[in-house]
Amino acid sequence: MTIALAVHGGAGPISRADHNPERDAVLRAGLAAALDAGHRLLHKGGSALDAVTAAVALLEDDPLFNAGRGADFTLDGTIELEAAIMDGHSQAAGSVTGVGVAKNPVKLARRVMETTPCVMLGFAAADASARTEGLACVTPDYFFTEPRWQALLQEKARLAAGLDTDTAPDRHGTVGAVALDHQGRLAAATSTGGRCAKWTGRIGDTPLIGAGTWADRHCAVSATGHGEYFIRAAVAHDIAARLAYAGQTLADAADSVINGTLLELGGSGGVIAVDVHGHVVMPFNCAGMYRAMVDGEGRRELALYRDEAAGEEAGTNPDGRSG
Amino acid sequence: MTIALAVHGGAGPISRADHNPERDAVLRAGLAAALDAGHRLLHKGGSALDAVTAAVALLEDDPLFNAGRGADFTLDGTIELEAAIMDGHSQAAGSVTGVGVAKNPVKLARRVMETTPCVMLGFAAADASARTEGLACVTPDYFFTEPRWQALLQEKARLAAGLDTDTAPDRHGTVGAVALDHQGRLAAATSTGGRCAKWTGRIGDTPLIGAGTWADRHCAVSATGHGEYFIRAAVAHDIAARLAYAGQTLADAADSVINGTLLELGGSGGVIAVDVHGHVVMPFNCAGMYRAMVDGEGRRELALYRDEAAGEEAGTNPDGRSG
Repeated sequence: MTIALAVHGGAGPISRADHNPERDAVLRAGLAAALDAGHRLLHKGGSALDAVTAAVALLEDDPLFNAGRGADFTLDGTIELEAAIMDGHSQAAGSVTGVGVAKNPVKLARRVMETTPCVMLGFAAADASARTEGLACVTPDYFFTEPRWQALLQEKARLAAGLDTDTAPDRHGTVGAVALDHQGRLAAATSTGGRCAKWTGRIGDTPLIGAGTWADRHCAVSATGHGEYFIRAAVAHDIAARLAYAGQTLADAADSVINGTLLELGGSGGVIAVDVHGHVVMPFNCAGMYRAMVDGEGRRELALYRDEAAGEEAGTNPDGRSG
Repeated sequence: MTIALAVHGGAGPISRADHNPERDAVLRAGLAAALDAGHRLLHKGGSALDAVTAAVALLEDDPLFNAGRGADFTLDGTIELEAAIMDGHSQAAGSVTGVGVAKNPVKLARRVMETTPCVMLGFAAADASARTEGLACVTPDYFFTEPRWQALLQEKARLAAGLDTDTAPDRHGTVGAVALDHQGRLAAATSTGGRCAKWTGRIGDTPLIGAGTWADRHCAVSATGHGEYFIRAAVAHDIAARLAYAGQTLADAADSVINGTLLELGGSGGVIAVDVHGHVVMPFNCAGMYRAMVDGEGRRELALYRDEAAGEEAGTNPDGRSG
């Protein structure tokens, strides 16, 4: 059986002008490290669940991305992390929101799935579970990065001045991974700090099964973008439902939702998705999305901007949507 | 245009033997009061949103049902209420979890939808929002009822003895309503105290848009049952997706999900659903569901048990599924 993996690190009005060559390079290196770690696991016969857990955990550890270390702050300057994971084979799922101490929320989401009677745990209970389960726990300073703090101060100044929310990708990033393993099993995982200056207590699409994260026997989907719209459109499950009931291809389904339904509601962002045949799509309806994949035919792609037809490798993207 | 409304008050292994005539009568009276309040609003030209809000608020106020007053307790003996509402016309949605002070969580969910940038708020932030919005707030004793407290003590004793969870309906009730108004707009709302002896911090399907609550231009759905399975099957959105993409009727879609997908996963419970033509279905895969409806043709039905072909009125149920 074939294997495939994709990862993302946020979507938004990303342009080349936003990044100096050094930042461009470290973003690509971060995506490549997550992609390679997950793909190596799959290649050795590891499970899709293990692959997405490993890839997302690496992106959580990388301070460049808005998840785990380097997460965005709430309006009150606190950290409230969210993550979800879903096993497409059993449709088991785990998710957490309002996490403040678990170093890797995706690992906590997985423990919720595997060791509790719950699918979703929130706030104090999620943190308590991280300690009970013996997962790595940290103090709030671990998550602190100066760029995210400055982004919060700028966003609060914008709000105080009555300006619109800044929609730069660094203001609402998310990380995620989707995978297909040698046994034909699909899995998805997503993790985020949430929107910059989000309301304390706000729960976004990332930990909501069917909105920001979904996996079943048809496909696995992980989303990034303005979460409220992804919830209202049930983006991740809607893509899977189009495969199951409308007979659409993964490319058509993901494109219909991201460039159709979601755009009509006014929502910006994108998804990565993989189907059971190893097809990978990475559509987005904004200027750019940090993304990388190795599909079932071994094509590799890594890109940040819309105008990249393919990434660092000699990969090609047949439908042109995710390139 | 036609109008239609349905309400539910929980599903589970309900049998006539569980209820003396007095309890049977007050349960029916509670459902009838909610149904009549919502239907009266629709009949006067009110919106589907107002109808489901009014119906669910009445069920929250009724101590017989597991939502608002009379809610089940967490494992720690605390109250953590959840509710969601969705407007099928705009696909706007609001939801809350971990609510401890708002007298009517469904009204708080509606405020989240109408006055905040969020779809979902949790725990301390949800309660703070109830106060900020000037909604009726109460102290924990308001929610306390002796039968729910005894149920918690019994459940804790069962858990301590290593027995299975009690699946009686009073252990995981939910209330909800779905409506179609004169302008062809659909809406759904759901509210719950969650499972009896649930983990503190556990978030169930009720407040998850697409799992326990969904409305779009095709149909409106509100669920009740073992929430974790409803999340893993994205029950409410899956029913809508089958209408949108598979061309199924509402009856076929709801039956396929409740007696197919959900049952295969091992999940018990049911849904109420209404489509844009005023068809109402109320399927469940367990022994009974507290339910009532007036469909688009004016047929009225109110029932508690599986063996009731119709309710107190002379209503009939053509497909026999929800009767």
